[in-house]
Amino acid sequence: MTTTVPVVENILGANERLAQTNRARLDETRTFTVNFMASPGAGKTSLILRTVAALKDRYRLAGVDGDVATTIDADRMAAAGIPAVQINTGGSCHLDAVMLQGALPQIALEDTDVLVIENVGNLICPANFPLGAHLNILIASVPEGADKPYKYPNMYRGVQAVILNKTDLLPYFDFDMDYFRRGVEALNPGLAFFPLSAKTGEGFDAWLSWLTSQADAYLTP
Amino acid sequence: MTTTVPVVENILGANERLAQTNRARLDETRTFTVNFMASPGAGKTSLILRTVAALKDRYRLAGVDGDVATTIDADRMAAAGIPAVQINTGGSCHLDAVMLQGALPQIALEDTDVLVIENVGNLICPANFPLGAHLNILIASVPEGADKPYKYPNMYRGVQAVILNKTDLLPYFDFDMDYFRRGVEALNPGLAFFPLSAKTGEGFDAWLSWLTSQADAYLTP
Repeated sequence: MTTTVPVVENILGANERLAQTNRARLDETRTFTVNFMASPGAGKTSLILRTVAALKDRYRLAGVDGDVATTIDADRMAAAGIPAVQINTGGSCHLDAVMLQGALPQIALEDTDVLVIENVGNLICPANFPLGAHLNILIASVPEGADKPYKYPNMYRGVQAVILNKTDLLPYFDFDMDYFRRGVEALNPGLAFFPLSAKTGEGFDAWLSWLTSQADAYLTP
Repeated sequence: MTTTVPVVENILGANERLAQTNRARLDETRTFTVNFMASPGAGKTSLILRTVAALKDRYRLAGVDGDVATTIDADRMAAAGIPAVQINTGGSCHLDAVMLQGALPQIALEDTDVLVIENVGNLICPANFPLGAHLNILIASVPEGADKPYKYPNMYRGVQAVILNKTDLLPYFDFDMDYFRRGVEALNPGLAFFPLSAKTGEGFDAWLSWLTSQADAYLTP
């Protein structure tokens, strides 16, 4: 198995170069691209749908949805009126830059201000495969427990914001918020943090305000 | 990237052979081995701790705990009085047969009736890396949502039982039990299914009864 290490390094190196190519392509058309990552069941799709519903009168939106199987999530995005491309990874546990490169020609980038990417539900592997997005967002959720920054540190290191979803469930869980925050802060000091509920909408305004400020700074330089 | 496919196939083939070697070693000492897999936050550790607490007067137990970082889970197992070996995967998203092979010499297998393995929290990759265990158990949980069998089919195909944990939270979630069950049944017909709460203990007796019947059938042939 030791012989696999250089192979993995080559793959990661190739992915890194292709991520830069993707970024250059997205910058050509000034398409602000946001990559959402989370564990299965953290509420990625619900959070994205509520976010695009709030933004769709302000920006021209499109979506890319990665999944191991099925088109459930892309279908939900399309039903919300957002043009969505499904990447079926065929068993692979993350999106990578090659997959995104293959999807980009299917998106009308010239007519897209903000591109939303929903990564495969996985709290480990996506951290190793940057796609070229301008923002990487990690969605944690209350039911997962407060120890996740300690147990999955790489995912917390490489992102520009952490959302803690499902705060409406805090009364039913022993979720130690201080422990969670300390873990995040140790890995990624000063990281933007948005506790919210995509179901009830509590805390959602602060998240939207931050996201639009990031998008506007990119789109109207 | 196309050149990576044969490499992956070689790795999987090598893993398969080593899993058989592990199984032979476990059978030499008649150590019934159970591999628990789940998404991050499904409650693997809590469920395992409640299970070993119920079984420790009946069997001689030991544990192996896989994690990307930290020894939080192995420490909890050891605190419960079960000798536990931590496998720190150093970023890898699953246990594999090589890692288990390396851990087995650290366990007093001759004095162990039941070996409990807690895999890395991941709903995709562990399905591709059998370890040589006698039972593979998938722990789903109510907060993850009922669509997970459809979205992560490989994990549901390769197991001998599915536990649906955190049933005490059903009142707070729109969890479509029929949809979940139909998904599981399509992938793995007749699969043993245990809805339960590792927190309150509801449903736990049926799971323990099934598990001990499996262990006894192996240990007292």
